[in-house]
Amino acid sequence: MSEGEKSDGISRRGLLVGGGLAGLGVAVGFASAPRDSAPGAVTAADTSTVPFYGLHQAGIATTVQDFLTFAAFDLNETASSTDLRDVLNSWSSAAALMTRGESLGFPTNNYDIPVDSGEAWGRPASALTVTIGYGASLYRDHPQLGLSAPALLKDLPAFTGDDIDATISNGDIAVQVCANDPQVAFHAVHTLARLGSGIVALRYTQLGFGRTSSVNAQQESARNLLGFKDGTNNLRSNAESEFKHHVWVGRDASAPYMVAGTYLIARKIRTRLESWSNAPLSLQEETIGRFKVTGAPLSGTNENDTPDLGALDGSGNQIIPSSAHIRLAAPGSNGGAKILRRGYGFSEGLDATTGEISCGLYFICFTSKPESFIKIQENLALNDALNNYTQHVSSTVIACPGGLSRGFGWGDQLFGR
Amino acid sequence: MSEGEKSDGISRRGLLVGGGLAGLGVAVGFASAPRDSAPGAVTAADTSTVPFYGLHQAGIATTVQDFLTFAAFDLNETASSTDLRDVLNSWSSAAALMTRGESLGFPTNNYDIPVDSGEAWGRPASALTVTIGYGASLYRDHPQLGLSAPALLKDLPAFTGDDIDATISNGDIAVQVCANDPQVAFHAVHTLARLGSGIVALRYTQLGFGRTSSVNAQQESARNLLGFKDGTNNLRSNAESEFKHHVWVGRDASAPYMVAGTYLIARKIRTRLESWSNAPLSLQEETIGRFKVTGAPLSGTNENDTPDLGALDGSGNQIIPSSAHIRLAAPGSNGGAKILRRGYGFSEGLDATTGEISCGLYFICFTSKPESFIKIQENLALNDALNNYTQHVSSTVIACPGGLSRGFGWGDQLFGR
Repeated sequence: MSEGEKSDGISRRGLLVGGGLAGLGVAVGFASAPRDSAPGAVTAADTSTVPFYGLHQAGIATTVQDFLTFAAFDLNETASSTDLRDVLNSWSSAAALMTRGESLGFPTNNYDIPVDSGEAWGRPASALTVTIGYGASLYRDHPQLGLSAPALLKDLPAFTGDDIDATISNGDIAVQVCANDPQVAFHAVHTLARLGSGIVALRYTQLGFGRTSSVNAQQESARNLLGFKDGTNNLRSNAESEFKHHVWVGRDASAPYMVAGTYLIARKIRTRLESWSNAPLSLQEETIGRFKVTGAPLSGTNENDTPDLGALDGSGNQIIPSSAHIRLAAPGSNGGAKILRRGYGFSEGLDATTGEISCGLYFICFTSKPESFIKIQENLALNDALNNYTQHVSSTVIACPGGLSRGFGWGDQLFGR
Repeated sequence: MSEGEKSDGISRRGLLVGGGLAGLGVAVGFASAPRDSAPGAVTAADTSTVPFYGLHQAGIATTVQDFLTFAAFDLNETASSTDLRDVLNSWSSAAALMTRGESLGFPTNNYDIPVDSGEAWGRPASALTVTIGYGASLYRDHPQLGLSAPALLKDLPAFTGDDIDATISNGDIAVQVCANDPQVAFHAVHTLARLGSGIVALRYTQLGFGRTSSVNAQQESARNLLGFKDGTNNLRSNAESEFKHHVWVGRDASAPYMVAGTYLIARKIRTRLESWSNAPLSLQEETIGRFKVTGAPLSGTNENDTPDLGALDGSGNQIIPSSAHIRLAAPGSNGGAKILRRGYGFSEGLDATTGEISCGLYFICFTSKPESFIKIQENLALNDALNNYTQHVSSTVIACPGGLSRGFGWGDQLFGR
């Protein structure tokens, strides 16, 4: 299907589905008027777009945007496979429009419910990406769907020191929505929630700002809320063989749609901000294993120097301590396991128990084998000096299918057609 | 004092104050190395700066930035006027540096606690502003300070329909921190909290994104989370006589520092997002009194058309309904009362009681007479059709002093010197 056929294609695929969407009271024939043709553009708007269709989903190996809204949904118990297929197809159609910076439609009839809630009108695409994945509970708790789970999809085990809140963990379906304008990301999640109404219900959302990783050399490292450069040693999208091995699923007989897909793991990690900020510089640096100002490993002088885990000081002590975060997370400490990190900072008011700002890292990573993350996290959970300042409070793993071809929806992909 | 003397000035004013700052374990001789000389600059960084010193505080009539962190602090019961003076002076010195995009200092001794927590290193000024104000409780509950309250400073009355949470309302001291990078705003609040540690404690913080107002013609109107253009009829900073009358305090014998100051009122207003988004277009437009796509008043055709509150349709009915938000908020409906609006959208996870995204408007306005806001809000609370979709959950009023001259700190200003 060519792009020119998009509107027909959308209505042909029946966006006006059962109970949920009928609540919108309108035939969802998305108009594709450019969203930024509506006046009210904000300053410093980012008109860049990230292609929605392709071999892989966007939002994984693509340039990391500045803002995150992560949202998980649970499927209603009574929903049928047709209900879910229709919702998912409506989501991918809407995501394709929104990621191009287009409106779902301007109102034409005063007595209709607006198809597009409008809070992103006047704002360009802002590099919006919408990345979907399915949790183990979708398969386990909804046998009426007739779906079998990807073989590697399992909820994460409990790690030493975890204090997990199940209500902000996992979920039947989740989306990682990223953009360079948080209101554009908000609108995308709001839109998915509206399109899914009656079939899926929001389980939790998580906002993030201040990307802590980059995936290509064009983006400099950013500092996380600990004040340290983060993601320096991340996988780089030009390292194709590494991505093929560590990120992209090759073939999965149990779930064919996982080809060129990946697993997303999210962990909400609260930071004890004042304990950390009031730790002496040397202690902070030994905890991380890097210099704070330059980001260089303690064994080196430049940010991109490879950490020398064997380096000893004049007294024969390890220069990068045995409990340093970067040592324990390093591939060499975990049988070669590598993951693609893509996390964000978060801040959300006061922590009533400590009187401090409630904040931390919403850690997100992608891996072709959740076992890789588990291996690294088991090591970190037991030994990482950073555990003195952090607390993991959520745990999510979802199976992210491969990318979509034009004319094909997420529902078609999941259920086959 | 010239800018070149700033570092001396800071140490001379004794930033190393009693219990709280001693906890930092360092002499706070702020270095003024440019913060963006540290590597790690993020993309699309905003290098613009807003002058900290001047007749008025920044962050009121200055261009509205994209992000807010509002933070309120309470003074410890045992704190003396000297304690508070020192904290406030350290805050204004730090704010002056941070708003220039400078670091509070890079670490020089490994065993010292870093003066600057570092999460804004590599990020430019991003138009940061830090605007301070004092709540009625500062004067009422801390007689040891020997301060008398500005005559017009009183906690707001209860309005019809209010459901106020006192823990996120008012506060002895509050700061409105705005920037075009939320991590820069985060860092500023974090820094103030550290500098005040032991003397003041955080009471609450509120994040906002998506400015809903502009204060000058260079900024187009933005849409709020209702999908409507907001702030169209706001006061404009080039309307000097209006600012003089409606925003800036002229003279206050009870508190001389209020000259050229103002009162900040903040109201956290939750939105029932799905009820709103699923209301027909005509109902949304009659509720606001404007067309959704264009932002024009229902009596006009262009966004900036003056609403004609007397306009009737062919049947003799008011075109802008009697319960329309813009009618009830209009100066003509409130004895000429005008306020300067400067609010932000907020979104903060799931509302467990509704299953919807918990979001809305963090309304902020500035007024020379809180009575103006009270008059407008009494009218809105009783009659505004928008009340069907909103709930006010916090209420804050603070007295914001006039701007500072170089070499003069907020403590000096409040206590005199």
